[in-house]
Amino acid sequence: MALWSGRFTEGADAFTQRFGASLPVDQKMYAQDIAGSKAHGAMLAAQGIIGEEDAAAIACGLDGILADIEAGALAFDVQESEDVHMAIEAELTARIGDAGARLHTGRSRNDQVATDMRLYAKQRATDLMAANVALREALIAQAEEHFDVILPGYTHLQHAQPVLFSHHLLAYVWMLTRDFERLAAARAAADRSPLGAAALAGTTYPLDRHATAAALGFAAPIPNSLDAVSDRDFLLDLIYACSVSCLHLSRLCEEIILWSTAEFGFITLSDAYSTGSSIMPQKKNPDFAELIRGKSGRVVGDLMALMMTLKSLPLAYNKDLQEDKEGAMDAADTLEDCYVCAAGMIATMTVHPEAMMAQAQKGYLAATDVADYLAKKGLPFRRAHEVVGRLVLRCEQQGCDLEDLALADFQAESDLFEADIASCLNLEAIVAARTTYGGTGHAAVREQLTEVKASLAADHTRL
Amino acid sequence: MALWSGRFTEGADAFTQRFGASLPVDQKMYAQDIAGSKAHGAMLAAQGIIGEEDAAAIACGLDGILADIEAGALAFDVQESEDVHMAIEAELTARIGDAGARLHTGRSRNDQVATDMRLYAKQRATDLMAANVALREALIAQAEEHFDVILPGYTHLQHAQPVLFSHHLLAYVWMLTRDFERLAAARAAADRSPLGAAALAGTTYPLDRHATAAALGFAAPIPNSLDAVSDRDFLLDLIYACSVSCLHLSRLCEEIILWSTAEFGFITLSDAYSTGSSIMPQKKNPDFAELIRGKSGRVVGDLMALMMTLKSLPLAYNKDLQEDKEGAMDAADTLEDCYVCAAGMIATMTVHPEAMMAQAQKGYLAATDVADYLAKKGLPFRRAHEVVGRLVLRCEQQGCDLEDLALADFQAESDLFEADIASCLNLEAIVAARTTYGGTGHAAVREQLTEVKASLAADHTRL
Amino acid sequence: MALWSGRFTEGADAFTQRFGASLPVDQKMYAQDIAGSKAHGAMLAAQGIIGEEDAAAIACGLDGILADIEAGALAFDVQESEDVHMAIEAELTARIGDAGARLHTGRSRNDQVATDMRLYAKQRATDLMAANVALREALIAQAEEHFDVILPGYTHLQHAQPVLFSHHLLAYVWMLTRDFERLAAARAAADRSPLGAAALAGTTYPLDRHATAAALGFAAPIPNSLDAVSDRDFLLDLIYACSVSCLHLSRLCEEIILWSTAEFGFITLSDAYSTGSSIMPQKKNPDFAELIRGKSGRVVGDLMALMMTLKSLPLAYNKDLQEDKEGAMDAADTLEDCYVCAAGMIATMTVHPEAMMAQAQKGYLAATDVADYLAKKGLPFRRAHEVVGRLVLRCEQQGCDLEDLALADFQAESDLFEADIASCLNLEAIVAARTTYGGTGHAAVREQLTEVKASLAADHTRL
Amino acid sequence: MALWSGRFTEGADAFTQRFGASLPVDQKMYAQDIAGSKAHGAMLAAQGIIGEEDAAAIACGLDGILADIEAGALAFDVQESEDVHMAIEAELTARIGDAGARLHTGRSRNDQVATDMRLYAKQRATDLMAANVALREALIAQAEEHFDVILPGYTHLQHAQPVLFSHHLLAYVWMLTRDFERLAAARAAADRSPLGAAALAGTTYPLDRHATAAALGFAAPIPNSLDAVSDRDFLLDLIYACSVSCLHLSRLCEEIILWSTAEFGFITLSDAYSTGSSIMPQKKNPDFAELIRGKSGRVVGDLMALMMTLKSLPLAYNKDLQEDKEGAMDAADTLEDCYVCAAGMIATMTVHPEAMMAQAQKGYLAATDVADYLAKKGLPFRRAHEVVGRLVLRCEQQGCDLEDLALADFQAESDLFEADIASCLNLEAIVAARTTYGGTGHAAVREQLTEVKASLAADHTRL
Repeated sequence: MALWSGRFTEGADAFTQRFGASLPVDQKMYAQDIAGSKAHGAMLAAQGIIGEEDAAAIACGLDGILADIEAGALAFDVQESEDVHMAIEAELTARIGDAGARLHTGRSRNDQVATDMRLYAKQRATDLMAANVALREALIAQAEEHFDVILPGYTHLQHAQPVLFSHHLLAYVWMLTRDFERLAAARAAADRSPLGAAALAGTTYPLDRHATAAALGFAAPIPNSLDAVSDRDFLLDLIYACSVSCLHLSRLCEEIILWSTAEFGFITLSDAYSTGSSIMPQKKNPDFAELIRGKSGRVVGDLMALMMTLKSLPLAYNKDLQEDKEGAMDAADTLEDCYVCAAGMIATMTVHPEAMMAQAQKGYLAATDVADYLAKKGLPFRRAHEVVGRLVLRCEQQGCDLEDLALADFQAESDLFEADIASCLNLEAIVAARTTYGGTGHAAVREQLTEVKASLAADHTRL
Repeated sequence: MALWSGRFTEGADAFTQRFGASLPVDQKMYAQDIAGSKAHGAMLAAQGIIGEEDAAAIACGLDGILADIEAGALAFDVQESEDVHMAIEAELTARIGDAGARLHTGRSRNDQVATDMRLYAKQRATDLMAANVALREALIAQAEEHFDVILPGYTHLQHAQPVLFSHHLLAYVWMLTRDFERLAAARAAADRSPLGAAALAGTTYPLDRHATAAALGFAAPIPNSLDAVSDRDFLLDLIYACSVSCLHLSRLCEEIILWSTAEFGFITLSDAYSTGSSIMPQKKNPDFAELIRGKSGRVVGDLMALMMTLKSLPLAYNKDLQEDKEGAMDAADTLEDCYVCAAGMIATMTVHPEAMMAQAQKGYLAATDVADYLAKKGLPFRRAHEVVGRLVLRCEQQGCDLEDLALADFQAESDLFEADIASCLNLEAIVAARTTYGGTGHAAVREQLTEVKASLAADHTRL
Repeated sequence: MALWSGRFTEGADAFTQRFGASLPVDQKMYAQDIAGSKAHGAMLAAQGIIGEEDAAAIACGLDGILADIEAGALAFDVQESEDVHMAIEAELTARIGDAGARLHTGRSRNDQVATDMRLYAKQRATDLMAANVALREALIAQAEEHFDVILPGYTHLQHAQPVLFSHHLLAYVWMLTRDFERLAAARAAADRSPLGAAALAGTTYPLDRHATAAALGFAAPIPNSLDAVSDRDFLLDLIYACSVSCLHLSRLCEEIILWSTAEFGFITLSDAYSTGSSIMPQKKNPDFAELIRGKSGRVVGDLMALMMTLKSLPLAYNKDLQEDKEGAMDAADTLEDCYVCAAGMIATMTVHPEAMMAQAQKGYLAATDVADYLAKKGLPFRRAHEVVGRLVLRCEQQGCDLEDLALADFQAESDLFEADIASCLNLEAIVAARTTYGGTGHAAVREQLTEVKASLAADHTRL
Repeated sequence: MALWSGRFTEGADAFTQRFGASLPVDQKMYAQDIAGSKAHGAMLAAQGIIGEEDAAAIACGLDGILADIEAGALAFDVQESEDVHMAIEAELTARIGDAGARLHTGRSRNDQVATDMRLYAKQRATDLMAANVALREALIAQAEEHFDVILPGYTHLQHAQPVLFSHHLLAYVWMLTRDFERLAAARAAADRSPLGAAALAGTTYPLDRHATAAALGFAAPIPNSLDAVSDRDFLLDLIYACSVSCLHLSRLCEEIILWSTAEFGFITLSDAYSTGSSIMPQKKNPDFAELIRGKSGRVVGDLMALMMTLKSLPLAYNKDLQEDKEGAMDAADTLEDCYVCAAGMIATMTVHPEAMMAQAQKGYLAATDVADYLAKKGLPFRRAHEVVGRLVLRCEQQGCDLEDLALADFQAESDLFEADIASCLNLEAIVAARTTYGGTGHAAVREQLTEVKASLAADHTRL
């Protein structure tokens, strides 16, 4: 039975009950709802608004409900209750009588649902930050294990210059480090208490909003009651953080899929992170990398959904806002699964350094260094670039590599070439020579490893 | 146990089983999967690929499984099966032995899942077309019941010119009529059979693809096997059709919400389509209109999600495509609920003609007709517009309406005004005078009603 | 000077003039605006609403303006005019005096802009259909030239089964054929005339809406004046059609980029469709394929933008709708460029059949056929699949291919193997054996070519 | 002429030149490009990589080019140059010869474009922060001017409880304050220097990346060269910040549009922020509020566009990234215009307190306080809610307000009512009684004003 029964003469039928109910979604927040109610009840008593005895009955009753839910002994019924708040309050009142009916004093579902969702968002952001850290650890471990493996570096998916495989993996660690910051920002955005804003305007009861905020672990109460019940920025921030991180994972997984092809052959995924085909007995498919890549769509879809829902809503609370939870929960659940899956996939993959090196020797990866050789001898870089362009054309016509050219071939294009050009054609040397900060040279990457591990350690302390 | 067990040495753990499984989502397609398998099995026998006895066992076994599922006697287990195809085939083989293991001859899950999803999409499109028709009926019924009620017509949400309320409602009927066409186009897009495309290349068995297509009610088999297993355009078309219709409903519900305000007061929603407040006893909220408006976000989010997932996928099947189903199902379910809810809300609302008329008398709605009066007497329309602008300014300064002005006031601005100007100031007359095709005049709207009812009747026959 | 100057006492400053103006965008529709005005003027005269002399002056004046614009002799000034309609009308009135000021009789900018945009959308849809046909021609030409080249067919980007390269290209032709239909549907959606709906309610002038619709080449007038001025579905349909086609192009270009890598090496793009690097002299980058792939984002963004703008708008015209044009124009311009670029890129690329064949011989592409061999001898397919899984594992352990195994190796896994198994291991034979409709067998693909050419010819007639 | 001319045998035609060119868009970054080149050139000389004389010529040449561009004396030609980098370098080399050709030493367009775009993003974020502050000032000024005006507070757009108009406006100030933080976060995200990452791997020249970072005002160089050239998170962050703020503005403008209707009548926009109609002489439309509301679509579309473009891109630079700029620039330009327009509109609007009060007296806004009255006397709140529900129903049936009921009527529903109930029915008293932190009581709002002004002052110092 609906709780505004005094006002209405007609009943709502089963369809509208189902269509209007948020219980199937918001029941995930039962622990947050109970925590919020306990804090509210205790504060009501501390302020003398309800009696201590009522407050004790409320606290005890809520603890019992929480225990029963977690033991699986209490299930919610969507035909009876519209949302988790009503379901728990009805259960409480059934258990403890009038004291339960006093709990809602000075409170509205509008501030209650916002409180629950903020507590929930904070928890999920923290969970995601932990999973983010674990994935970074997996990447760093592979980077350290294969520290000096050389990979052809790509731009436009064409061979460009040789890079360390570890350097390549660390690029993703930096992306994830930024994602950690976005998740932390989303957590901070959620960290304000709406409790006490009531329906929209505050209340005439002498509530202590700072007390309930503190009891629930919020940094502070929200300073405007209308904003408190209508703000969903913290959910946008959370879904946005998830979206960007999913984009990063889509890039990582695209590369894992490429590297796993017969054509690249740079890695082999473990069987645990591969699947077969129902028809083709030889297949070993990177299904999980594909799933992670594909799931970027759903999370960005969750972001677009909430943005569109929020568009043009007048103040304060509107029922449209009920649509805020499913997408935010889905985004967090999806990213958490993707982090866990990616970490396992990365940790268990087998790397094939020889295949990477074989490819690195194709595509004239030394060309830039040959141009630099000329530039260092005084030829303006643009001219040097043209000279090497002609050398590459010569190689293509002869079907050979730059190192196969005779010194005379080099000198035919520029008389600045001397015998020491040979030292510019070795991949190990080319990599090692990139010593400036952030470059792919061994020393620079070692320094970078120190940096990523320091930031990882610092982030550990923020979980 | 995974079905590619011959190939792998490691087991997949519970996480990857859950993460990779589509069963929680695709089990909704059990009936389609069974229908597809029956058609495939019968064709295999007809072509002499399997024996008639095997085919009979397959058909009988599948019928039994279908009956058990629908009776609630058979549940799927996500820890055992990756998807609905595997779950049903495993059950079938458990029941009938080797014959079940022969069913997958000349078939892959790639063409199987595409077949299932197309059958499912066709069914849901048809369901939506039926719900669309019902909502149009509800709108038309209200339009007929309140045929000659006058509403202030708005542009920029400012009073513009008087219109018939029925004319206003019919504008939504036309939007929904276009939506019906988009749904029909989505259904037609799904109406091609991928069955027989196998994994990606077709098969060496002498399958009769035209036979299975016909048995399943498809218009034709898809003419390219790679396209057959990788095309998801039909789902985009379905979600797009849902998205546009949700946008139309968001506009309708915005108006219902406005009309229900204390300020407008044009309608009262029935109690069955209203809800109250947990704190404010007087509230009667248009929750359902708000929910429908808000749900436009999730459906557009579903569209963005699938578009993003499809971006940059090489041919043919990729596991990313597993993400196609949840959003499409959600979009269809959401729109169907919204149609049903909107129809009930429209059918049961109470209209307040006097409130509409009271508002229509504010805002100088006769101004255009006064300008037209001058123009018809030979003043270029742009000059007439300026004259009436000055008359309106005069009214504002005097705090009166156009009909309160004396003839002398009119003549002070233009000597073209004569006593017959009075006839241009009556709202009923202003509406009635808009007689051209598509206008708001009574005769034109009656003609329009005939049109919408004819198209509704025609659409009834396409369900 | 604003045209509602009679009403206002304050001037609008330069900022609001610029911010509110649509002229920088809508001036692209000058030809459509002039055509609409000519049709309206002629109809006004035919109905006796204005004199024949005025109508002749209007037609002559508009022709002169059109000629001057196309000759570059008349430019619009955003500081003077808010939109293209005002700019042209002001110019007309400056040229022909009061007759120009009579043109706007019975018309509003609301129906005028909708008319212009529909004419424009129809034209652009037709342009896109023509460019779509040209791209299909380029793909078909390559398919015919390299008809029997064998490519490793992929699922999950893993080698799956051999397919004809022509079959692979034709998969894209079918996608584009569906895109053509969506563009045609968008054109049909635009093909209704709003002219005569006036501001929102129709008009008291005896306009002949069927006459102006016919004069402008529209199929019919729109039957509801409110819908006529507020409907933008036709633009959604156009942007949606562009979006889906861009998604298809993103898939094609992803493959072109993959095929152009050193690792795949299947094709070489012509120099005209490649670019170099400012620093790496050896680079030859598939920039244009990347640009096309990347531009899928902007077009889907255009779709999202308009959907969000339309959400929750009440009837009838709202200024938000001014935002409809830029995205729709951008989507059409972008897709047209992408079609043209892709056609040139496809037409001029060089195919390397030997590289494709070399890859096709990796990855046990015969495995499915070996399993089918066993199944045809009576082993249930699922058992056959397991046998071949073990054979592949044996090959991997021995570092060899299936064709390198001795008959004894085969027989060690199943005694159904006999000497004729050799015939299942040849790629040409494997391809050729896929003879069913839509399969990759030569005969089936030849039949498919006939189909695509027939549909292409039919589509030619619809331009 | 393309700069990789040594490598290619074919020319690029006009179409590919136009299609591939980013110059029409990236020329907006000319000042950033020149600043980056000056810093790079000076560092090259400081490190002894080029001569001091060359460096001086470069600096002088670049200064001249900058001056000429800003004087309008130098225009770029898209047929000559692909992008702004090439255009400026070509001009420089034309002016100073070989020294210009030496500038590109140790640099690639990949790090160059990332540097330019980061400088540009930082500048635009700062511009937006300033415009954000100005809008907050306008809102605060109106809040102070109309501090104690009473507005009916809404939930579900139904009258809920009376609130101060100033409290309502401050809700938007808080939203904008959060937006300021998001813009600041986006600026911080951009504040890292990619310069020196070269094409993707760093370089063999002894560049001093910390020096160029410092010279350009960046906080630090980016620690991974692959990440440096492929990261576009800072643009996502910027567009996201713009998107959320546009959503907030869409809510504000929705309310402004509602308040401007004949039905609400709460405000009158100034003529400078209104427009008229081409056909209806009486119209005064809130066009600018509608435009701002509608433009939320384009900015969210920009976000969707870049997210989709980034999906699945492998490392490092890909040409798809060229699509990053137009949307980011559009989002920033749009939001800046919207801020400026909204500030002017708010500052110049006329508020009608009496109209707000008249509406506040409709809808039983005292109902919550009557329920609280009973609850404070010991009735559990849920029971009190039911009692007041029945009182409201009684009023509706009698067509009167709560204050029109006799004490006996109250007592007929509950004997807890006494004569002091009258004090719960006065709107001023109801508002004043909401004294807790964040509530709408006068004292609480005064405290809130102090808070918003403090945060505004603090934000001023961050511009």
